[in-house]
Amino acid sequence: MTHRLTEEFTVDFEPLGRRARVPQGTTLLEAARQAGVGLNGICGGAGTCGTCRVRVVAGEVTPPTEAERVKLEPEAVAQGLRLACQVRVLDHVRVDVPPSSITAPQRAQIEGRERPVELDPAARAFDVTLTPPSLKDLRADAMRLRQALQRQHDVVVNRCDHGALCQLPDLLRENGWRVRLVVRDGEVIAVAPVGISPLGLAVDIGTTKMAAYLVNLESGETLVARGVMNPQIAYGEDVMARIAYAMDGEAKAYEIHLVLVEGLDDLARELCAQVGRGSSEIVEAVLVGNTCMHHMVLGLPVAQLGLAPYVPALAHAYDLKAQELGLHLAPGANVYLLPNIAGFVGADHVAMLLASHMCEAREITVGLDIGTNTEISLAAGGRLLSCSCASGPAFEGAHIHDGMRAAPGAIERIRLNAGSDGQPPRVEYRTIDDAPPVGICGSGILDGVAELRRVGVLRLNGTMQSGSHPRVRGTGKGTEFLLVAAGERGAPRDVVINRRDVNEIQLAKAAVRAGVAVLLEEAELEEGQIERVVVAGAFGTYLDVDSALAVGMFPQLPRERFIQIGNAAGMGAKLALLSRHCREVAEEIARRVEYVELTTHPRFVAAYTAALMLP
Amino acid sequence: MTHRLTEEFTVDFEPLGRRARVPQGTTLLEAARQAGVGLNGICGGAGTCGTCRVRVVAGEVTPPTEAERVKLEPEAVAQGLRLACQVRVLDHVRVDVPPSSITAPQRAQIEGRERPVELDPAARAFDVTLTPPSLKDLRADAMRLRQALQRQHDVVVNRCDHGALCQLPDLLRENGWRVRLVVRDGEVIAVAPVGISPLGLAVDIGTTKMAAYLVNLESGETLVARGVMNPQIAYGEDVMARIAYAMDGEAKAYEIHLVLVEGLDDLARELCAQVGRGSSEIVEAVLVGNTCMHHMVLGLPVAQLGLAPYVPALAHAYDLKAQELGLHLAPGANVYLLPNIAGFVGADHVAMLLASHMCEAREITVGLDIGTNTEISLAAGGRLLSCSCASGPAFEGAHIHDGMRAAPGAIERIRLNAGSDGQPPRVEYRTIDDAPPVGICGSGILDGVAELRRVGVLRLNGTMQSGSHPRVRGTGKGTEFLLVAAGERGAPRDVVINRRDVNEIQLAKAAVRAGVAVLLEEAELEEGQIERVVVAGAFGTYLDVDSALAVGMFPQLPRERFIQIGNAAGMGAKLALLSRHCREVAEEIARRVEYVELTTHPRFVAAYTAALMLP
Repeated sequence: MTHRLTEEFTVDFEPLGRRARVPQGTTLLEAARQAGVGLNGICGGAGTCGTCRVRVVAGEVTPPTEAERVKLEPEAVAQGLRLACQVRVLDHVRVDVPPSSITAPQRAQIEGRERPVELDPAARAFDVTLTPPSLKDLRADAMRLRQALQRQHDVVVNRCDHGALCQLPDLLRENGWRVRLVVRDGEVIAVAPVGISPLGLAVDIGTTKMAAYLVNLESGETLVARGVMNPQIAYGEDVMARIAYAMDGEAKAYEIHLVLVEGLDDLARELCAQVGRGSSEIVEAVLVGNTCMHHMVLGLPVAQLGLAPYVPALAHAYDLKAQELGLHLAPGANVYLLPNIAGFVGADHVAMLLASHMCEAREITVGLDIGTNTEISLAAGGRLLSCSCASGPAFEGAHIHDGMRAAPGAIERIRLNAGSDGQPPRVEYRTIDDAPPVGICGSGILDGVAELRRVGVLRLNGTMQSGSHPRVRGTGKGTEFLLVAAGERGAPRDVVINRRDVNEIQLAKAAVRAGVAVLLEEAELEEGQIERVVVAGAFGTYLDVDSALAVGMFPQLPRERFIQIGNAAGMGAKLALLSRHCREVAEEIARRVEYVELTTHPRFVAAYTAALMLP
Repeated sequence: MTHRLTEEFTVDFEPLGRRARVPQGTTLLEAARQAGVGLNGICGGAGTCGTCRVRVVAGEVTPPTEAERVKLEPEAVAQGLRLACQVRVLDHVRVDVPPSSITAPQRAQIEGRERPVELDPAARAFDVTLTPPSLKDLRADAMRLRQALQRQHDVVVNRCDHGALCQLPDLLRENGWRVRLVVRDGEVIAVAPVGISPLGLAVDIGTTKMAAYLVNLESGETLVARGVMNPQIAYGEDVMARIAYAMDGEAKAYEIHLVLVEGLDDLARELCAQVGRGSSEIVEAVLVGNTCMHHMVLGLPVAQLGLAPYVPALAHAYDLKAQELGLHLAPGANVYLLPNIAGFVGADHVAMLLASHMCEAREITVGLDIGTNTEISLAAGGRLLSCSCASGPAFEGAHIHDGMRAAPGAIERIRLNAGSDGQPPRVEYRTIDDAPPVGICGSGILDGVAELRRVGVLRLNGTMQSGSHPRVRGTGKGTEFLLVAAGERGAPRDVVINRRDVNEIQLAKAAVRAGVAVLLEEAELEEGQIERVVVAGAFGTYLDVDSALAVGMFPQLPRERFIQIGNAAGMGAKLALLSRHCREVAEEIARRVEYVELTTHPRFVAAYTAALMLP
């Protein structure tokens, strides 16, 4: 091999599945930029902010620098963490990027911990060559195809999708009787010229956001991922508002269904366009969502989901044609929906249980999907218990005085430092995109409450002590804490945390903690026996586990028992897209789950009341 | 552009939505006939009855004639009314047809020999009572239904149609958890309040006419039957014209498909309305038609049907959802199409073979479906041979000088009597509805040729002998026989049979006879061994078997071996609607058939030539 002055190396960023090709000596931060990975880097690569933490899992790089030794705690170093701005590439490298190191624009929450899976999709492609018809061989096109498929691939089909069948005669004749077929469950669902890989689409339909993944079903590769708002947001922020809208007559129920389907259709088209494909090449889609989103996308009535005993119309795993939903994918494309567990424990939670593998694990594991509704599962001793609690919208920044969604300008991290050497105490915070602070998102308010309690501003019961901090001030409506004063770092107005905000967080965190407590009681376990806590979902990804522990939302366990796994529902949807075995596992999970209804549970109220205080 | 002697123009008839393509100078009455619009025209276009009033709303036509000035009142003229028989087309024209100018429903062939059949429809109704959900029983509606069905009726379903599922939750709650389900092949396809019998629809889609039957699937009773024109008639009288239209681009192919589906949809709605039901109560439909109609209703490409080797896209029996076709039946309704045998032996012939039971009989039997294309089958010694021959449109009254469809005023029977006691020979005839004679339909022209031959007017080769009969007269174009003189029984003009008409019948009947001859040869049988001849179809019902024997269309067998069974295709469709066993029989028939291609058969030309002469 000839000597090359500067050699190029690949840098793979996991779990994002992005790759850069860079010369030797390039920093990981530069490589990340090139690969389109939005790594935090508040100091711009000076090594002073310590936010661009990554773990090098394979390949040779430069040794830790002085800046890293200063900025990284010993435990972080022990875990192999590095600052991306300080690490230079010496070979092909694979890097693991923790969700907390990723900047806001990508926060549509599409990343999650991916696990490798054996490729075994429901829809598979086969190339066949047919003998052209003649006066001696007058078999119909459909029969000719069926027999060729059996002879050439030992695949038996008993049906051809009608849309695919309509395309077949011309396609055969235009392509010299050699075509590619996509077969699913004994049915030819698509026909195409040879060489075109069928596409799959996985979508996690959240109440607020949708995360979508476009996948090459032959290679298993994720071609592109994207997060967008759920277009139903225009009909209300939460599930109950949308149920109320849908109950106001058939036309409205249809309208709110249609807006969601059209949103999915747009999303599919845009994802495909981004990689130069067409959405008519998507042959299989997997959708997950909470039970209400599941019913709404299917056009099922939702009235019964809004009334006790909150019974779904449909719970088991469900297959239907994309066409039946009005989705414009391949004419014969199918849509698979994972099973629901109950009215408030939906297919998204099943997907999370699937992706986290927690049901297969030996450890006693708690899984949490934190949102307006929080779904909680407990896997212990072969049992699987699930419940849902109404944690309210505070974690999404709603019902908070200066609350907002996780968007540019939202304060997402807060630290209150004691003033040293006679200096007044400082408030440190980080905003999404480093934009001027305009409000507080869920992870910010959680940090805020945790810090205010830590520095003694908040009492056990959540009230604010006047005079406990220079920034505590009285208003006509009560006491509040001034987080950011108007004008500071370009802030257009004051940003505060008040007593009612603290109360919202108390109510929300108590619901989560009480849910865990009831499941533990049902399983006759103590908190301390929990070996692992898996935290999923958008808020679950960005929250600071220490803060969640500090406010008492989580069982008081050692920090290392917690794992944040990102958008596990989306990952679960992708697994179900790539593997029929994963579908079976998901269906088995839904069958096994023992659903625990909290609203009528004799122990819930006591557990909830006990959890309201701040530790 | 080169000069064209006669240009073709379109004539659109509103509000009927029918279209004709005619040469310049064609009258609107003629165009109406071509478009299948049943315009009044008692005088047959002489301008004397004044009943064919229409309004020309767009396009250039000839100015009012003297006849119109006499027949139309000044007010009518002021409103732009014209007599369709007097107006000649000079350009593309759009015409408004007042309801009063449309004839009584045209005669359609809906009756046929019915055989009793054990009721065993694909879709069956079951009443179930469900336990309402409670906090102790949170099963989803779909699961609750499935389990009740199994417990109460021992019926296992593994799927609920999506449209039916969408109706289920509200229906259950509005009907006190007691509902009627319609189940088909392991799927719940419809839900309804108890007490409502599911409906079935059977349609024979002929190239010219459609015959439809609405059936109560619980009792097997035919509630109502109706025959209507195939709305595709506006796109050409025969299959080849429609294939040509469909080949002129995707939009046109879709248009001609859609007009047929919409026609079926209208038909379903009208039939249901006639018995106070709704077409959303139809849970199963069976369609039969020739291979081209079969493909067109399914929206399959037809180009390959118009080119050798005339291979269908689909031949086997086919099930799809009515919704996939755009038919507005019950949301989960299915459509079943009987199998095709070949490009020119379609599902309608299979239905005829099913209804006639000829395949099960021990006798050597010939079955004939006579039309523009005639399908012929021979059942003998366990074998079943089928072929198709191009018999042309003469039997439907087309390409005949005074030919017309079987509509009021058409001469359908003719007898020529020798004059007795010095009286001149008499012509006796019967018209449909006893209306004044305006033309001759297929059975009439067949009678006419048979009679002209019998009384010695026609020679063996079909030429007319001058002086052989007082009514034989010479014209500039040759010899003709005056059947009805203008004025006789109100006839608006002379009705004649000329040499060319006789020739058309010779060509047509020779094709049929040659087809039978080739099948016999393939089976190594002689004509005399045929024990039964089953004659089906509209023309087959009304033709006089003696006349058909007299012109040599049928094998020369004793009269009692012939049986006319009416619309056997429609009957076969109804059997398939009522009985799954009949579907199996039909599928078995299609598998067993040995198709014989006549166009390339070494013996066909000789047999055809031999059959041209009149006996």
